[in-house]
Amino acid sequence: MSVLKDNERLDDLQFNGLKIIQHQEDFRFSLDTIILIHFMSVRYGERVIDLGTGTGIIPLLLSGRTKGMNFCGLEIQSQMVDMARRSVALNGLEEKVNIIEGDIKDIQHEFKTGSFDVVVTNPPYMTGGTGKVNSTDRIAIARHEILCTLDDVVRACAFLVKFRGRAFMVHRAQRLAEVITSFKHYGLEPKRLRLVHSKIGSKPHLVLIEGLKGGNPSLDILPPLIIYDHNGDYTEEIKKMYF
Amino acid sequence: MSVLKDNERLDDLQFNGLKIIQHQEDFRFSLDTIILIHFMSVRYGERVIDLGTGTGIIPLLLSGRTKGMNFCGLEIQSQMVDMARRSVALNGLEEKVNIIEGDIKDIQHEFKTGSFDVVVTNPPYMTGGTGKVNSTDRIAIARHEILCTLDDVVRACAFLVKFRGRAFMVHRAQRLAEVITSFKHYGLEPKRLRLVHSKIGSKPHLVLIEGLKGGNPSLDILPPLIIYDHNGDYTEEIKKMYF
Repeated sequence: MSVLKDNERLDDLQFNGLKIIQHQEDFRFSLDTIILIHFMSVRYGERVIDLGTGTGIIPLLLSGRTKGMNFCGLEIQSQMVDMARRSVALNGLEEKVNIIEGDIKDIQHEFKTGSFDVVVTNPPYMTGGTGKVNSTDRIAIARHEILCTLDDVVRACAFLVKFRGRAFMVHRAQRLAEVITSFKHYGLEPKRLRLVHSKIGSKPHLVLIEGLKGGNPSLDILPPLIIYDHNGDYTEEIKKMYF
Repeated sequence: MSVLKDNERLDDLQFNGLKIIQHQEDFRFSLDTIILIHFMSVRYGERVIDLGTGTGIIPLLLSGRTKGMNFCGLEIQSQMVDMARRSVALNGLEEKVNIIEGDIKDIQHEFKTGSFDVVVTNPPYMTGGTGKVNSTDRIAIARHEILCTLDDVVRACAFLVKFRGRAFMVHRAQRLAEVITSFKHYGLEPKRLRLVHSKIGSKPHLVLIEGLKGGNPSLDILPPLIIYDHNGDYTEEIKKMYF
């Protein structure tokens, strides 16, 4: 296929015939992305931006699954931007999905404040110096806070989203206190929270959070999201997300 | 029994022969208190204070269950102070348990900062104007933020506990974002969190949190605490707390 460059693969998103280009050996979209998308709500006519979009998986899937009007993906790595744009073209979604090359720390030059109804992000989970650092830069940048910190990401979310707009994030459970504090600090009141557990009775490893810009304090904590059942198969809830 | 005043009852705490005086029609100790005590750790020789101690249930039970050296209970309502002191005397615990009449907002006149290794509190859950307000003042004060706010309570916790000391709190799940932000604001880093659910698969209604004064960010979220099993009986974990 001519749309693919060296070491790239074409994957079927198993939804509306959507396809996505990904690197063979790179950070490919994961269950985290799928559960984040299912945690979100995007309403008719809304404008959405995904911060650190990578392959563009989130705007691509949201464009197929929701009634939103426009879906932006912001990405700092030009190689990823190029790949995401080719995925957009491959799916014929140039009218609805825009991949923009830019730095989360510099968005005030690219966008006006309050330009979006919804902002979503699956940011790097690991702080600069912790965790196992991957060998290639592309992966390290996606997983570690090398080019941006949690504070940078949440500040950008708060800048981009309009008053009463929503911000959605997935993050590691151990960083929940930092995520909540940062949301509060930038005026994104945490309104919905869901913890993600591998199995019933295990500690959660991920958190899903929704903040409302200018919202009043009152947090709705949802029932736990369980990934695997007692047999090690996906639970019904997870299966429904995929099929 | 001469230790009881009008409309009081004597209850067996079912632990080490401890007994407690409570009002007949008042706010009596609840499951929340029991699960908070089981969430806590108190080590040999430690000094502990309970903010808003009410009947004194928390210092009384901790004095029996842990190797702590001294247990204070601070209470603003003189009628409750009197009752708690009679419970202490009834159990012969005057050497270990002190009930102090005072206001959480005024503790700097009563105590030096950093006087305690551990601080614990089961504060009023409801903000001033919300929820069903009970008919008697005693109950309203225990349940609603009439005499103190969450901010007052957490500030007092941070003042009283020493560097590297621990603060434990139970609160309503919907207030988790406020609790975490307040802990962070006053330098009590959230280190352990547990959500309490009525049943498996239900939303949590309570949160248990441990903060470490001067701690580094990294939150350990424990497996959910489930109260009732599928038959409506207490789960094994809850049964073990009682017996």
